[in-house]
Amino acid sequence: MTSASQPNRRGDVDPFIVMDVMERARAAEASGRRIIHMEVGQPGTGAPQGAVEAVKAGLNQPLGYTVALGIPELRAGIAALYQRWYGVSIDPSRVIVTTGSSGAFLLAFTALFEAGDKVALGEPGYPSYRQILRALSLTPVGVPASLENRLQPVVEDLEGLDVAGLIVASPGNPSGTMLDHSALTKLANWTAEKGIPLVSDEIYHGLHYGERAVSALEVTDQAWVINSFSKYFSMTGWRIGWMVVPEDQVRRVERLAQNMFICPPHASQVAALAALDCTDELEENRKAYAENRRLMLEGLPKAGFTKIAPPDGAFYIYADVSDLTDDSLKLAEEILDNAGVAVTPGLDFDPVRGKQWLRFSYARSTSDIIEGLEMLARYMAARQAR
Amino acid sequence: MTSASQPNRRGDVDPFIVMDVMERARAAEASGRRIIHMEVGQPGTGAPQGAVEAVKAGLNQPLGYTVALGIPELRAGIAALYQRWYGVSIDPSRVIVTTGSSGAFLLAFTALFEAGDKVALGEPGYPSYRQILRALSLTPVGVPASLENRLQPVVEDLEGLDVAGLIVASPGNPSGTMLDHSALTKLANWTAEKGIPLVSDEIYHGLHYGERAVSALEVTDQAWVINSFSKYFSMTGWRIGWMVVPEDQVRRVERLAQNMFICPPHASQVAALAALDCTDELEENRKAYAENRRLMLEGLPKAGFTKIAPPDGAFYIYADVSDLTDDSLKLAEEILDNAGVAVTPGLDFDPVRGKQWLRFSYARSTSDIIEGLEMLARYMAARQAR
Repeated sequence: MTSASQPNRRGDVDPFIVMDVMERARAAEASGRRIIHMEVGQPGTGAPQGAVEAVKAGLNQPLGYTVALGIPELRAGIAALYQRWYGVSIDPSRVIVTTGSSGAFLLAFTALFEAGDKVALGEPGYPSYRQILRALSLTPVGVPASLENRLQPVVEDLEGLDVAGLIVASPGNPSGTMLDHSALTKLANWTAEKGIPLVSDEIYHGLHYGERAVSALEVTDQAWVINSFSKYFSMTGWRIGWMVVPEDQVRRVERLAQNMFICPPHASQVAALAALDCTDELEENRKAYAENRRLMLEGLPKAGFTKIAPPDGAFYIYADVSDLTDDSLKLAEEILDNAGVAVTPGLDFDPVRGKQWLRFSYARSTSDIIEGLEMLARYMAARQAR
Repeated sequence: MTSASQPNRRGDVDPFIVMDVMERARAAEASGRRIIHMEVGQPGTGAPQGAVEAVKAGLNQPLGYTVALGIPELRAGIAALYQRWYGVSIDPSRVIVTTGSSGAFLLAFTALFEAGDKVALGEPGYPSYRQILRALSLTPVGVPASLENRLQPVVEDLEGLDVAGLIVASPGNPSGTMLDHSALTKLANWTAEKGIPLVSDEIYHGLHYGERAVSALEVTDQAWVINSFSKYFSMTGWRIGWMVVPEDQVRRVERLAQNMFICPPHASQVAALAALDCTDELEENRKAYAENRRLMLEGLPKAGFTKIAPPDGAFYIYADVSDLTDDSLKLAEEILDNAGVAVTPGLDFDPVRGKQWLRFSYARSTSDIIEGLEMLARYMAARQAR
């Protein structure tokens, strides 16, 4: 059922397959071709204007080290976001500002697990969970999630697993599907019964197109919740994330953070603090994603991609292409070479079933989406006609 | 002889004792007292003006993710620095841009060592080596270095050690002492004979007051050399470091970096690239440190701190205070409370002998140094007279 990876040398992590697609796309562009990027996991927009202005103003200060857990105003601002978004009251002392969500994962896994521990995660999922776990001498245990469960793990999938923790992600990457309050509660209860931590990756929160996403902190104050300024706040390259940890874990995480990171980048913290107040601009971005999503849900089936996981949030659509291929990498290359659209093969997210899936990102501009869908439809029709 | 730490839970790292001093100093300042900071390990200056201007100009771009190993121009610029500083030719592909030297240590230790491995390091030394190793389920093996060897480890100290790697630092923190070409060659040969990696922390390079520091890359192209924009380039809070690795290790490190960090902060990379050309301003900073150092070497003995390791570089002076105390933390608190000068007890750098040492930093302004030395001399004279 579950696929436990072989323990391998910690430094021997897998390459991202998407990197090969990106390199092939770059080479095509360098040769003068027009390529539409549906492979990338980042907004086409930059940081909101208010964040940019705050950095400009902040450049008059020396911008030395901050305290390890982040500037207090930013921690308070993030705590206030939990009130604003979920109606949940969080003490700012529980908010740990990190160097991207990447830094949060390194801190959480280091604080929570010992070398050799097994950690469960849903498949498909963000490939770096697996690789960061391996780099820390931990063993990822992939739990295949079914399409009828919206590609999210359910307690039945976890029965009998002997693991030291569970990682969930809602909205998920690549699926965009969410765990609702009831589903999240069941998973949280399962971890509580086993006495193991629940790590909830909420990096796509804020990017929803129907119901908002539910935070694990609405369900339990024992969850380790990870989020970031990269997606909703459109600040990928600034590398600011955060983590909310149980009250009694703050000191432990602080000591690790002092030693492993010293502090998150100062200028980026200044930008992030201002970004919290840039709601109008960020909601405009979200409207653009909503329109992109509408176009994708209309255009992808016309291009022959009909089996799609319901994308509640984030900016991805994950499509089952088993009727087209058993080799999603080859199909992605074919689509790139012939349609001029870069897409991501599912293999990065699901080492087994991913060979029959593709991920389409709609994070770029609406005009790119329109053009890309036309290019896809044209090529896929010609392919069909062969 | 050597002190192998107990294997403990990876998240249970020691607190920095200096943090207690810093908190006590902060409280004193909050109550209105004038405090001179000789405890801090960062320049009082900010990033050089050219770096600040480059960031301002760069804010017009979206500043999304960069490639994992850093923007190519920055890697090339760092490679060129090895030519400029040491006359060593380094292929830019061997330069890995990291999120501070902290990120470089996480990458190096993850790429090089397996859980349970022992890693040797000189004592006294930078406390985070020890804590990062522990956080990665590795065991630090402290090698006490003697004052006659300028507080740097020599091959004789390492005889019989069964370790998977050796970490050296020149100029050292807290000592400021350097390994010359011959000393570094002997240590490199020792690691080569054992077939284990040499990790050379060169974060204080550029900050020397007589002979320049020797890079491990002048001795062997097999060293893992770690450096940063935090000290000479005066950019602590920007969190940009780098690492030069052996040619055949680049792909392995790249895969780890992609997964563990995605990329170093983009705006900070833009700043760092420009900082490489700000030599005039940075050399002015160095002149100020040189003057501070001269004042300290003159003033500290007058205040009763006579047993000092010869500070070749960096911005620290490490003083043997065994004639004054067996409890350096208590002495540091006493000096802070009575003289109004914050200094660092040696315990962070050397868990055993550090109780008889203090570290004085001269990274701040010359006027602060003058004032602090007067305050120290006045209090220590009064203390002596008791």
